[in-house]
Order: sequence, then C-alpha cells, then structure tokens
Amino acid sequence: MERNIYLKSTDLEEVEKIYFNCFENIERKIERIKVIDSLNRITSEPIFAKVSSPHYNASAMDGIVVRAKDTYEADETNPVRLTYEKDFLYIDTGDVIPEEFDSVIMIEEVVKIDDKTVEIFKAAYPWQDVRPVGEDIAVLEMIIPAHVNIRPVDIGAMLAGGVVEVDVIKKLRIGIIPTGTEIVDPGKELKPGDIIESNSRVIESLVIERGLIPNRYDIVEDDFGMLKAAVRKATDENDVVIINAGSSAGSEDYTSKVVDHFGKVYFHGINIRPGKPAVLGVIDNKPVIGVPGFPVSAYLIYELIVDKLFDRYYHTQSKERVVKAQLSRRVMSSIKSEEFVRVKLGKVNNTLIASPLNRGAGVTMSLVRADGVLRIPKSIEGIDGGTEVEVILMSPRANIDETIVSIGSHDIVLDIITNILNNKYNGLYFSSSHQGSFAGVMAMKKGIAHIAPVHLLDEKTGVYNVPVIEKYLGKGKYSLVKGLNRIQGFYVGKGNPKNITGIEDLIREDIIFVNRQKGSGTRVLLDYLLKNNNIDREKIAGYPREMNTHMTVAAAVLSGSADVAMGIQSVAKAMGLDFIPIGVEEYDFIVENEFLENEKMVKFIEVITSETFKEETEKLSGYSLDDVGKIIRI
Amino acid sequence: MERNIYLKSTDLEEVEKIYFNCFENIERKIERIKVIDSLNRITSEPIFAKVSSPHYNASAMDGIVVRAKDTYEADETNPVRLTYEKDFLYIDTGDVIPEEFDSVIMIEEVVKIDDKTVEIFKAAYPWQDVRPVGEDIAVLEMIIPAHVNIRPVDIGAMLAGGVVEVDVIKKLRIGIIPTGTEIVDPGKELKPGDIIESNSRVIESLVIERGLIPNRYDIVEDDFGMLKAAVRKATDENDVVIINAGSSAGSEDYTSKVVDHFGKVYFHGINIRPGKPAVLGVIDNKPVIGVPGFPVSAYLIYELIVDKLFDRYYHTQSKERVVKAQLSRRVMSSIKSEEFVRVKLGKVNNTLIASPLNRGAGVTMSLVRADGVLRIPKSIEGIDGGTEVEVILMSPRANIDETIVSIGSHDIVLDIITNILNNKYNGLYFSSSHQGSFAGVMAMKKGIAHIAPVHLLDEKTGVYNVPVIEKYLGKGKYSLVKGLNRIQGFYVGKGNPKNITGIEDLIREDIIFVNRQKGSGTRVLLDYLLKNNNIDREKIAGYPREMNTHMTVAAAVLSGSADVAMGIQSVAKAMGLDFIPIGVEEYDFIVENEFLENEKMVKFIEVITSETFKEETEKLSGYSLDDVGKIIRI
Repeated sequence: MERNIYLKSTDLEEVEKIYFNCFENIERKIERIKVIDSLNRITSEPIFAKVSSPHYNASAMDGIVVRAKDTYEADETNPVRLTYEKDFLYIDTGDVIPEEFDSVIMIEEVVKIDDKTVEIFKAAYPWQDVRPVGEDIAVLEMIIPAHVNIRPVDIGAMLAGGVVEVDVIKKLRIGIIPTGTEIVDPGKELKPGDIIESNSRVIESLVIERGLIPNRYDIVEDDFGMLKAAVRKATDENDVVIINAGSSAGSEDYTSKVVDHFGKVYFHGINIRPGKPAVLGVIDNKPVIGVPGFPVSAYLIYELIVDKLFDRYYHTQSKERVVKAQLSRRVMSSIKSEEFVRVKLGKVNNTLIASPLNRGAGVTMSLVRADGVLRIPKSIEGIDGGTEVEVILMSPRANIDETIVSIGSHDIVLDIITNILNNKYNGLYFSSSHQGSFAGVMAMKKGIAHIAPVHLLDEKTGVYNVPVIEKYLGKGKYSLVKGLNRIQGFYVGKGNPKNITGIEDLIREDIIFVNRQKGSGTRVLLDYLLKNNNIDREKIAGYPREMNTHMTVAAAVLSGSADVAMGIQSVAKAMGLDFIPIGVEEYDFIVENEFLENEKMVKFIEVITSETFKEETEKLSGYSLDDVGKIIRI
Repeated sequence: MERNIYLKSTDLEEVEKIYFNCFENIERKIERIKVIDSLNRITSEPIFAKVSSPHYNASAMDGIVVRAKDTYEADETNPVRLTYEKDFLYIDTGDVIPEEFDSVIMIEEVVKIDDKTVEIFKAAYPWQDVRPVGEDIAVLEMIIPAHVNIRPVDIGAMLAGGVVEVDVIKKLRIGIIPTGTEIVDPGKELKPGDIIESNSRVIESLVIERGLIPNRYDIVEDDFGMLKAAVRKATDENDVVIINAGSSAGSEDYTSKVVDHFGKVYFHGINIRPGKPAVLGVIDNKPVIGVPGFPVSAYLIYELIVDKLFDRYYHTQSKERVVKAQLSRRVMSSIKSEEFVRVKLGKVNNTLIASPLNRGAGVTMSLVRADGVLRIPKSIEGIDGGTEVEVILMSPRANIDETIVSIGSHDIVLDIITNILNNKYNGLYFSSSHQGSFAGVMAMKKGIAHIAPVHLLDEKTGVYNVPVIEKYLGKGKYSLVKGLNRIQGFYVGKGNPKNITGIEDLIREDIIFVNRQKGSGTRVLLDYLLKNNNIDREKIAGYPREMNTHMTVAAAVLSGSADVAMGIQSVAKAMGLDFIPIGVEEYDFIVENEFLENEKMVKFIEVITSETFKEETEKLSGYSLDDVGKIIRI
C-alpha cells in the first residue's frame, strides 16, 4: 500500500481533478428490473423500442374508412355516394384500418342517406387521418439513452414501445458513521457539553433523496480502536463510507489516521469555507470521506464532493440551477479560500435580490432559511452590494416570486403572520430577516425589501417611527402600516434573584448585562433611556456584548450568562423569565406606497387585521392592537 | 344529491375557480411521526425549537478560556502572564465555558512559558470566541412553518432544536383505474387494435414522485356495470380516484355517467388542447377525475388538475419554474382553446431556443423529448418565430446549457453518438431533432442549432452538401465536418415479394410507395433520380404520403401499408427488410466556424473519430468512414 499523500488545503478544482477519478476503473453493477418499478433509476444501456406504436395502422378519428381513390370525384356540388361494406365501414378512433381501405373521413363530414348509403362532399387523400405504424415510436428507435434518470414519462414511452424490463445501474449503498464522544442521539437528556447528533440524519436524507441506500451506524466514540473497527465494518458492508466529524487535525480527530491505516488519504483539507477540514480517501477501491462536524460544513462537503462522486459513478450530472440576482450588501471574502455564502432570495420591484445569511459554519438555520448559495472564488476580497451575482439554487421551497420579503426588527408575531398567510393563501410566503429596525429602513431605501417592521424612537420628540422614516426616507414615497403596541422591559431570572428594579441597576457591580446590536429598536430605546437618566454606558458590564434578537438575549439570561437584558414582554413569558416593564413602543411596518396596492400586501393587511391574528397575539403577553392596519402616508 | 352541472368545454381558469375548492371543507388527517422519518412530508403545524442550540455557552475555538478583565492590560510590549487553573483552563471547540470564565483566546495566540504558565499579547473582550446559548437556534424560535415540505436540512434543524417528533398531514391515497376493452397489460402478445396500457403507470409514477400513495387497479372493460363496481370500490378505498380514458362523449365512454351515478359531475370538457375531454367530479366528498386516453392529454390533465388539487389539499404550491426562450419557428394555435405545446430547449449563441415538438396528443415521445411546455392562451392564433416566450420547465433531465443542439437529417448513428458522448463525458448531452436536411440548413441560418447533419445533393453538379451550403449559407461563416458515406436504396419486404429491381418499378400499378417529407435529403435524392430517369412522380401511388424518418417508412413497409420506400441500408438491416442499393451519399455535419473551437464540438469530433464509433458503425450495415472528422471550410 502506497503511503499517504498528505496535502494541506488543496483547491477544490484540484480535488475534483484527482479524487473524482477514483470511480474511474470500478465496474458498475447492473440489475434487470421491471420497467414499472424503474422510476428514478439510472439506465445502464440505451433503450430501444421493441414494437412500434401504434403497431398497426390506426384510425385517428371516429368516422368511416374508405378507399381514397373512390372519393377523388367528390366536391361540394358533386357528392359521391358510398355503399356500406362495399365502399366503406364505420370506424372509431384507435381501430385497425382494414386491409382493403386506406383513408378515414371524420363522421362530421359524412351525410347519412339510408342504412346502407352515405354521401361525402370532399375528396379524401390516401392515409388521411390514419396514424401509421410507428407514428409515435418506430420499432428499434432509441427511447432513452444510457445513463439517464428514468422519469414517469419515460416509463410510459418504454411500455408503449413494448419494453417491459430494463437494465439499470445498481443503487450504491452508503455507510454513514457518526462519531464523537460529545454527541448524543436526539431525544436524550442533555448535559452541558452534549451535542445533539443531527448531521448523520441530514446526510441519510440527502442519500434517500438521491435515490441511494443509506446505511447509518450507531455513534462511535473518539477512540482510534473503536473508529478503526467501525470503518472496517462499514467499508466491508457498503460502496461508499461517510465518517462524520473527527476530520480536523486535532488530537482526537482520528478519521484521517484510520483511512490511512486501511487505505490511502488523497486529501486532508480543502481550500473552501465552510468545509475546510475534510478527509478524502479510498479503502479497498471504495471512497471514504471524512466530513467536518459543523452542520453547514457537513452539508457543503456532501453537496460539493459526495454528491458529485455519485454523478461520476452514474455518468450523470446534477442539475445546478443558477439564477442571476443582485447582492443586497457587500460580502467580504477570504482571498485564501473559495467561499460559499448562503443567501435568501426575494423579488422586489422585479429584481431578484440575494441577501447573505449568517455565515457561521455552525448555524444550521442558515441552511433552513437559504434559497441558494453564492460561490466566491479564491483571491477575491469581497463583492460589493448591488453587484449582479450568480446564485446556485438550493431546492427552493417556495416560489420566490410569491414571497413577501421583510427586513427589519424581530418579533414573534412575525411567525404568527407567516403561518396565517400560509394557511389562508396557498403558496404565499413571508420571509423575514431579523437585522434590526435601522437595517429595515436602509433595506427600504435600497429597494431590497417589500416591508420593514420597525420600532424606532426619535430621541428628540419621543415619537415612534414617523420622524425617523421622514429623516431617512423622505416624504411622499412611503407609508407606515400600523402594527402593534408592545411592552418593553427587562428580562431577569425567575424570582428576580438579583433584585433588579430599574435602569439604574444596570451599573451595579454584581450585574452582568447583555445588549442588543446597534441599529435595533431596542438598542435605540436603551440608549435613549441611559441618556435621559444620565447613566454612563461604560459602567455597564456586558454593554459591548451584542446579540441579534429578543430570543437570544432572553436565552442568555435563562442560561445565566447574563443577569439582565432588554426586550419585549411576549418573549419573557414564552421563555419563562420574569419581566420588569419599562414602557410601551410602537411596532409598525414601512411599505412603499406603490406596494400598498399589490395583492400580496392586501393579503398581508387582511391577515394582521383578522380575528385569528388578534386571538393569537392575545395568547401572548404585552401586545395591544388598537390601530392595527391603519395606513399613515409619510 | 344535486343534479349534474354538465358544462361543455369550460375555460381552465373557471375550472380552477370552482373545482379546486372541492377540498375546501375537508378535514386533513394528521399523524405524528419521528423527525428522522419525516423527509418530504408536509408539516401540519409550525415547528418551534424545544431547546436552544447550542444549549450552553460553548467555545468556538481550540485554545484557553479566561476572564476577559484579567487580560485588559496585555499588549505586544506588555504581555500578561496567566496561571493554569487559577487564571485559565485549556478548552476545545464545543466545550462548555466554565462558570468563572467568560472569554476564549485561540491557541495560536497563546505562548507557553512552562507547565503552569502562559503569556498573551492582546486583550480579550468578554465573550470573545464564545458561541452563546441559542446562537444557532433559540428555544421557542420557529424552525419551519406549517404546510411546507420537510427537506434534509429541516430535519437537521429540528433535531438540533430538540424536536424528535413532528405532526404531518397524512399521505393521500390515490386510486387509479385503467379502462378500455382495447387496452392490454404490457408484455402481452399484441393483436391488431390492441393498445398497450401505459398511462396508469405514468400516473402511478407521478403520484410516487409527489410523495403520495398510488393504488392501481386492474384494467376495467368498457362496460357500465363493471366500471360502476370498480369506481364504487375505488372511491371507498382511496381519497382521490383517477379513471383513465372513457372520458370522451362517445357511446362507450362511461366515465361521466358513472360519476354522475354516484356523485356529481362538475365539468365535462375543458377548453385546452391537448386534454379537452376530461371529467371532473366528486363522489362522497372525494375528487374523481376522468383523464383522457391519449398519453399527452393524460399527462397534461394530471399536471394541470390532479397535481394542483394536491397542492390545495396540502396548502403548498408546485414550483413552476419558468424560463424565457426564443421560439424557433411560428406556432399556430386554436383561438378556441388554450394550447400547451411541448418544446425542446437548447442554448445556442447564448440564447435559449425553444423548438416546438410534434403536437399529436398520441405522441408519447414528445413528452420524453420535451424540456418544457409553452402555454398559448385562448384567442391567440399563433406566435411568430423569434418571439420571446415563457416556457414552463418539465423536470429537465439535463443541464440545458450542456446540450449540443442538432437539427437536421436523421440517422441511427446519431443514437450511437449520443451514447458515446454521454458515456465518455458525464453530463454532456446531444439533442437531435429529426426534421430533414433542409430544415437543418435553415436552423443554422437562424442560429438555433449548433450542428446540422445533412445529406443534400446538388442537382446540377451531383456533388453532396458543399454547393447547397454555399448557396443558402454563403461563404466564410460555416464549415462542414465530414461524417459518413452511407448506402441509399429501396426497402422491400423480406424476399422482395413484388420483385422490385429499380426506380422504374415505382410507377407499376401494383406497387404502393411511401415517401419522405419535402426537404429531407432522401426526398431530394429521389426527386433527382426521378428527373434523371424521366419518371413522372404523378404516376407513383403513395408519392404524396410523407413520413419523417427512415424508421417510419421502413415500419410502413414492414407492416404492409407500403410495398417500397427509400432509405439507408442500416435501417433495413436493423428492421429485417430486404434492401436494393441505389447509390452512396455523404452524411456530414454543418457547423458555424466559431463553434468549431467550442469544447462541446471538440468532444463531438473526438467521438466521431474514435475507435468505439468505428466499431459501432461497422456492426450496422452500409457505412464507411473514410473522411470522418475532416473539416472543410466553406
């Protein structure tokens, strides 16, 4: 056995060139199956028709069948009379053209004289309205080529062409080994440090979607001997083996060592982000891939490497569907790696807008929210906002055209709106990106959102929303659709253990605060209150630690990493925290005037003014809907 | 029970408005399943996270964990020393941040002094490189809304959010009843008039692809009583029933009568082509749909009506993916019906070209060959060639960009080329449209094909291809890639029963000929020979009967509907016909000079000059490859 070629961080292109050929000399196993069971299987040979369709000359009409030459004299003034059985027979669509006849006249053009006689007023040409043998499929014609995926219509054509069995390439069996001492099966009680094992289930599902056979093993601890045994077994039992995690270069990362032990490591490390610490090897002529542990990295390595290997095996090519979109804001990129940035797509003012999502490799929700992936080549430092880019679609859930794009402040009522919209109007989606109120204002200005939920206090007047919108968006172009009044306050632990009563407690030495990000309405309110109360923000421990939603700051208080945070009452109730009210704020929606007339917006307003919405928000705490749906032109 | 509303030929829009509401008041059955088994199921409720992810404050790096305030003095000239266990601990990615610490410094920035001491040169800020609780998923955050299809990444996010079971809408069970006295199961011996039953298998496969449960019954004869019994049983056992054929208004078309008997017929006849004679009814609150018998009509009614009904039930919306393309030629359309024309797509000179396919409702192969459907509204007489149109994609098999578009003359070697290309270069496709040599020349002129296989005799000089190309395409822009010499001649029955020896036999009274279409190279050759031999084409019985390929005329001779036809030798051999040679012709490929350098064309030439291609063509008869691959600039 040759020694490892241990290469650190090879470019993806190089990896494709070398590693993707590992299937080159493998014999593909073929099996013969029934055509009726062949949906989504891959042909191993071209399929040729065994019979013609139709396999006889067939009438294409209901009517009479005649000899064309008997009708040549007929015209509108000189009808020709034909006698039953001697000159014509009645015939239905699909019936056989009898030997002695050669032409069909449709029944609408036949005048019945008596039981035995008809008249016609137009000459028929030979083979008129006859479907000749092989009109649809000629015997020996190729129906589908080798190495294609069999679709429902292909099954129909094969059957119609007399083909009842078909040779297909056998399904590959994919072994999936989850590893890691810290990972636990879903549903188990969680201790701090435990990580729920979900990657193997994502990979299993991707393998099923691809039409292959997943074979998932139990979790293997980070132990060289145990991993060795597991990989040996999996390599014996499957055609391809995927080991999830343990692919880094750390002390407990045994994947590459095990592959090296039994076979050959081609690459360890790929120049992509996320997904860098992948292991690509071969054991007994079978690909063995070590996939990184972070969910986004695992997904990308599957899509970029594993799925493409399957393409090589089956001689197929994945359909990468690419759309052109305008980038909503500048994206920075490493010049050392090729980067894959998840984006959300939305159509605003007839332009497809791609908004980059959270790029952390651990952020599973960025995969859930993404509509596509933007690929940024190495040696590019970034792409400017407004640039036209190509986005690879990720099996889009919704018709992107039918999505209301919302960018702005977060509130859990947005989830309620999403669900009512979706329930009431099939296929109308609401996509909300929680970047804070001020980002919402900017998104409206750039024309990359349909709607912006905001709660922005004007520090001078103490008035919500209208003054800020006027300042940044001017007058005449936008309206404010009134939403909800909601109560803002402090989140504290159950029973208020540190006895926090007001804003002045934030500077206490024993208090750790957690803040919301700049530009969020809650941050604006906090800074307004600090200023009015002459409190020095420098004295607040944790003031620089920023989080992006009410829920994440509440989670920080719940976990004890902070003693207090600021947010809306409904979240405190939902998460079981105590709440100290500070004041009421107005959470409204900015809309372009033109969009007010749009069917999507009409439906949105229907939803927020509906009884259902009222009932659902009443179940939460801290909302009132006095002016909901009222439109204020700005 | 209310009496039938029997409407003839209602517009599709009206049908959607009324019939699609039949699910409106039906209770959707819900079942709770494991998240790991939920791939491609439809959620019935929004799914909220039960735990945060991470559910503890976790290190985002390998390094040391510290108290940020202990590091504030550190800079490059004044390192800070930290003592193990007192001031810092070692920590790995994913480990829990211990209570007394709040910040992580990556290992690369730590200098080890001794076993107990490290030095750092930069201040750490609080919560540096810590993944806070809920960074990915916050408890109670909505992971996915109600009524969406669960994808692999959604399964990952649900598991990571502590969700192990999920409520989904039960799968609908779809009864499929094939009917017709003339239809027979695939694989049975065929008598004239028999039609192979394939539609129910296409529908079954479409139902499987949609993720529902198909329940196919045995073929039912055209008999009112038998159909009644079958429909009663199917309606009792399923949620939706599809009856295939018998949906017309003919004497043996019982579908609408049976639906009327047990329930209510909403519509009989839709203003679309193909697909007009559909029956839309309801029995016991269950949709019962009579689908027409012609394969293309059956497919369209499934896609336009049945699949959309499923969307209504599940509150989802099918992803209709629409592309813009340029129509290759004028398409006529009925002003009385909305028309659905299957088209083949190809990218030539950066323009997506849509070429209309055979429009017969019986032509299964048009479904196999189609990449999309062009929808032509009612009251439009047609669309001009060159017009930009919108095409609805039909689950495209190939990456359309990776397809060589060929329009021109047919030869079975094109199938060989397709298969070698596909075998050798994954995902490079060859799409050939057989419209005859002259159509190929015109396609090159219009820029809607990459390549045109032609065999066109110049009647003046007797020279193949070059003179005709010069005449129609001019000099300087195109080249001819030499293909094969092939033997043309007459197809006659086995043993030559009518004793045909040469072209003069065509005018014999006892001989019926079948012709190729105008513009085909074979037709040009025939007309040239007739002229040179002073034979009057008017005297040839069957001269006006035109067919589009060698195979279809051969099939006509094989079936006895003609005594003789003209075509290439290889087809005669393949179909077991006798062959009378007439002469050798040159079958070459026209290419634009610019395209000669294109990677696709380079591969094409590699294929036709390969050993494999030579071997495969030798297995056929009547080919020689003397100059294959030679390029002649014109």
